[in-house]
Amino acid sequence: MKSRPISLKEVKLRDGWLSRLVELGAKVVVPYSLERCEETGRIDALRGLWKPGMPKEPHVFWDSDVAKVIEGLALEQVAEPTPERARQLEEYVDIILSQQQPDGYLNSHYVFVEPDKRWSNIEQKHELYCAGHLIEAAVAHFQATGTRKFLDGMCRYADYIATVFGLGEGQLRGYPGHEELELALCKLADATGEQKYAELAKYFVDERGQQPSFFEEEARRTGRDRGFLYRDGRQFQAHKPVREQEKPVGHAVRAMYLYSGMADVAERFEDAELLAACERLFDATVNANMYVTGGIGSSREGERFTTDYDLPNSTAYAESCASIALALFAMRMMNITGDAKYADALETELFNGAVSGLSLEGDRFFYANRLESLLPYGLMSDSQAFKRQGWFGCSCCPTNYCRFLPQLPAMAYSELTDGIAANIPVDAELSHAGLSVCVTGNYPFGDSARLEVQKDCASGTLALRIPGWAEGAHVLLNGSDVTSQAVRGYVRLTRAWQAGDVLELRWTKKVRCLHADVRVAEDVGKIALALGPVIFALESVDNEGPLSAYILPEVQEFRIGEANGLPAGTPAITGRAFVESNASAGLYTTQRPSRKESTFTAIPYALWQNRGESTMTVWVRYC
Amino acid sequence: MKSRPISLKEVKLRDGWLSRLVELGAKVVVPYSLERCEETGRIDALRGLWKPGMPKEPHVFWDSDVAKVIEGLALEQVAEPTPERARQLEEYVDIILSQQQPDGYLNSHYVFVEPDKRWSNIEQKHELYCAGHLIEAAVAHFQATGTRKFLDGMCRYADYIATVFGLGEGQLRGYPGHEELELALCKLADATGEQKYAELAKYFVDERGQQPSFFEEEARRTGRDRGFLYRDGRQFQAHKPVREQEKPVGHAVRAMYLYSGMADVAERFEDAELLAACERLFDATVNANMYVTGGIGSSREGERFTTDYDLPNSTAYAESCASIALALFAMRMMNITGDAKYADALETELFNGAVSGLSLEGDRFFYANRLESLLPYGLMSDSQAFKRQGWFGCSCCPTNYCRFLPQLPAMAYSELTDGIAANIPVDAELSHAGLSVCVTGNYPFGDSARLEVQKDCASGTLALRIPGWAEGAHVLLNGSDVTSQAVRGYVRLTRAWQAGDVLELRWTKKVRCLHADVRVAEDVGKIALALGPVIFALESVDNEGPLSAYILPEVQEFRIGEANGLPAGTPAITGRAFVESNASAGLYTTQRPSRKESTFTAIPYALWQNRGESTMTVWVRYC
Repeated sequence: MKSRPISLKEVKLRDGWLSRLVELGAKVVVPYSLERCEETGRIDALRGLWKPGMPKEPHVFWDSDVAKVIEGLALEQVAEPTPERARQLEEYVDIILSQQQPDGYLNSHYVFVEPDKRWSNIEQKHELYCAGHLIEAAVAHFQATGTRKFLDGMCRYADYIATVFGLGEGQLRGYPGHEELELALCKLADATGEQKYAELAKYFVDERGQQPSFFEEEARRTGRDRGFLYRDGRQFQAHKPVREQEKPVGHAVRAMYLYSGMADVAERFEDAELLAACERLFDATVNANMYVTGGIGSSREGERFTTDYDLPNSTAYAESCASIALALFAMRMMNITGDAKYADALETELFNGAVSGLSLEGDRFFYANRLESLLPYGLMSDSQAFKRQGWFGCSCCPTNYCRFLPQLPAMAYSELTDGIAANIPVDAELSHAGLSVCVTGNYPFGDSARLEVQKDCASGTLALRIPGWAEGAHVLLNGSDVTSQAVRGYVRLTRAWQAGDVLELRWTKKVRCLHADVRVAEDVGKIALALGPVIFALESVDNEGPLSAYILPEVQEFRIGEANGLPAGTPAITGRAFVESNASAGLYTTQRPSRKESTFTAIPYALWQNRGESTMTVWVRYC
Repeated sequence: MKSRPISLKEVKLRDGWLSRLVELGAKVVVPYSLERCEETGRIDALRGLWKPGMPKEPHVFWDSDVAKVIEGLALEQVAEPTPERARQLEEYVDIILSQQQPDGYLNSHYVFVEPDKRWSNIEQKHELYCAGHLIEAAVAHFQATGTRKFLDGMCRYADYIATVFGLGEGQLRGYPGHEELELALCKLADATGEQKYAELAKYFVDERGQQPSFFEEEARRTGRDRGFLYRDGRQFQAHKPVREQEKPVGHAVRAMYLYSGMADVAERFEDAELLAACERLFDATVNANMYVTGGIGSSREGERFTTDYDLPNSTAYAESCASIALALFAMRMMNITGDAKYADALETELFNGAVSGLSLEGDRFFYANRLESLLPYGLMSDSQAFKRQGWFGCSCCPTNYCRFLPQLPAMAYSELTDGIAANIPVDAELSHAGLSVCVTGNYPFGDSARLEVQKDCASGTLALRIPGWAEGAHVLLNGSDVTSQAVRGYVRLTRAWQAGDVLELRWTKKVRCLHADVRVAEDVGKIALALGPVIFALESVDNEGPLSAYILPEVQEFRIGEANGLPAGTPAITGRAFVESNASAGLYTTQRPSRKESTFTAIPYALWQNRGESTMTVWVRYC
């Protein structure tokens, strides 16, 4: 069952977790980020206002930030067009295009700051990465407006890139140091119908990691010290050809964008070998290198993967962008393969790690997403902040939210050639290929999701995923159990539909206690609480005493109520706990700590630190 | 009961843990470090062989490395004079003195590299720190040879420093950015009988942290950005006057050297207020900021203290030098106050954290001492090495061992005006003030330590510490229990002694299971095994399966045997364990891990990673 993200014109989410995020994106995150881009000089750079010697020197990745905000603005315009947004879009697109060079090149750093250094450090600078984001923005703008000005400009850029890079004589046999362009070129191929862009993406994918190493030669040529992390190419997933790669390595965001591009290329070229590499890399990521929240890339040094089962909680890096990128990869694999396991990972991200970086107000962000934060505030250096911040020198995460949040409806629902796949059946109204459906049930916080057909349809397919977390769940068609028809986690029904037909997913609403593989050293002896796909955390604002002293009886009647001080409808889990104490015995003692009976409260991890300064832990000891 | 380190001429350790270390220092660590100092240009710099443009540019802390090795050489010469060492000492002392400037100044970096920058960055450079180590080396050289050449040279340096720094007009109201000079000046006062050096130490101690801040003004004057860690002065313990300080803050080595200098000044000036500050800072260190191994300074960033109970194991910084410095501080407090609690901390260092940095062969070193190392080798960056290394760019730790190891006998035993205090009664022969004693019992690995008087003594004092770890221990004089005479942990007997008199400490030899305060998040639910003062660790070379999966029944008959592949007599603890397993259940699962019966072996923490690559943990789950 191949599918594609449903058009944002065809789906409207209703009250719930995801719709709140979509609205927050449009109301706060995008306008707020645009302001920051103005304030920090990112847009002035594209206006050509920066001159050597002035402050706010354009950085090599600045254009990508602007592109991501504009992509978000355009996606919002697809979903809900307004004249004001249309005006804004044209204004910013004109600013961007004003700096495109006659040969098609576009990068405000290299044009203004280092005009003679174009393509001199492909490994560590971000020209091709910025190009990718500009192309994605142009495709979104084309979808929103139907006009080709931006798209054509970016086609010229891509055509120019195709002259610089490739196997031909005089060309650079290189590939992006920071991947992203590969997936963007596939989008460009789709939007324009021009296969040459997919071919260029395929070239970049297949050239990566070939010997002799392009990055090694580039460093030698320019006399650059590649540094410890870079020497073997793993940081950029260039240590071996991508088809031979077995495990996620290096910079986590780069890895996930690469794998996304590989998936896109695999699909377009029906390349089973490449798709198998994607499947292998996905499995190796989620089965040994992913936090229970969906966070990936555990090490701050290099923002990277380290080794299987190395998932420390208090020092978790788990960059917001890495979770967003894993969601984008999982979405692609879900649509290509029709396998629900990819939707499981996508869902983990949408309710946890890919959204925990964003404050409830929408204007504060985590760059790194820890699973445990037990120290007082203000002790660590700026780079180790425990609080969400308003912006960053490298502000990839806030701007990534700009273009990620508007896509959520098209992650929850996919379009089939003849119908709709409900991957994450949150409340929504949608229609595609003659099928109109209204979804209710407050997924995932209720105990059923009801897809009601809104009008007759002679023939169409409805596909409904059975979530991996919903042990013993059932799917019913007009009350009859059709669970057994599930293939790879989806029940797919192709038939004539009548208004009033109901396809329903039913599950038992209960708190699950999750144990990690015992090779995850920091999680041994501990559990994480989950309700559906939502991972919970204990925050000190709800719990007395040091959180490290809590022990939860695993077998107990957990209660599901409503959280204090969080959006209406946010569940809280409460229950019995023991709290250990030995404060008077000295720092180290032969006395066992004493235990007293107490209670605990847990809230969704993604919403922690929205009620003032607080300590927090996802993993809690159990007995 | 005031005491002083016993002269190294008066004590000879015999086979055992400490004597092995003393021998290793003389046979390997000092000659090896001298070779490295030659090879890396540190000594050539003092020979005046470096010229601008050449490689191996003298670093501002290089002289301190050379000074520490020479101090070690001189201390060994005190203990066991040889003509070869005498020759070496004169050679290197002449090299050092050859670069002393006419005004007394001496620093190979500022003399050759930045001749106009003397005293321009007191906060972050190390001129005064180097001066302190040079002075300590000179005092040791004087003790070893009785000649004053080096001592007089360093007096001239100190006299010059006293003209530069002080409260007078035109003087800098500064103090060392890296403390150490304070304690060295007190040693210089002792060696020369010149009180003015103690006065200068007192000035440095009391000026620190006064307002307006000298460091702040220096930074403003020189336009230097102090950086996040430095801004509030805590990194250098200059955030407030030292007498008002309540908790250890900032760079751990600096802190301990400062407190040592404060203790020295407090003793010389009978300054009760300053001594009270030392007691307070010591308690705050060992009761809330010290690893069970004696490691201090948990954060790699700034090599510093963070906050009470923040003692992560796998990322522990716990610099070797910081443990050495805590030992030096604890030794001073032990001698000044006669309180055994300081000897307890000193002993913790000598059997654990202050010696774990040194390989059994003596030529490989940890800079940071982790308490848990569960990842495969080779994944992290150079700065996060898991293996002991041969040398470091900043090689303070290897050279600190050079001068620390020869002092161990004078830490184990102190001299009283009329006798001897046995702080750590390891096997030894010693005599002072007419008392001659032979100590046997293989402390701390036996169940008694026997101090036998070797010849008659009309009147003298023997003091014997009852270790804090030895619950229910007894002290017997010729078989009669005198335990009840203990004051602050020492039994002190002043009497006429006859040859054959025996003062004996007896304890029950047993494995202790230590629990940490439950506010130490990483240690909750876990125990550390101890035998006497020695903390044990599980190493993968002795144990199958991932160490994170081990659970030790706390109540069991632990067996004490001999460790494999470690020096003869090294104890190993073995016993029953459960090993958890859930590898087939996926990374996160609702299934509880299964347990199977197994066994475990633990070896002294300080000796880990001497038998090839291995994972290791000190803290293990218990049931």
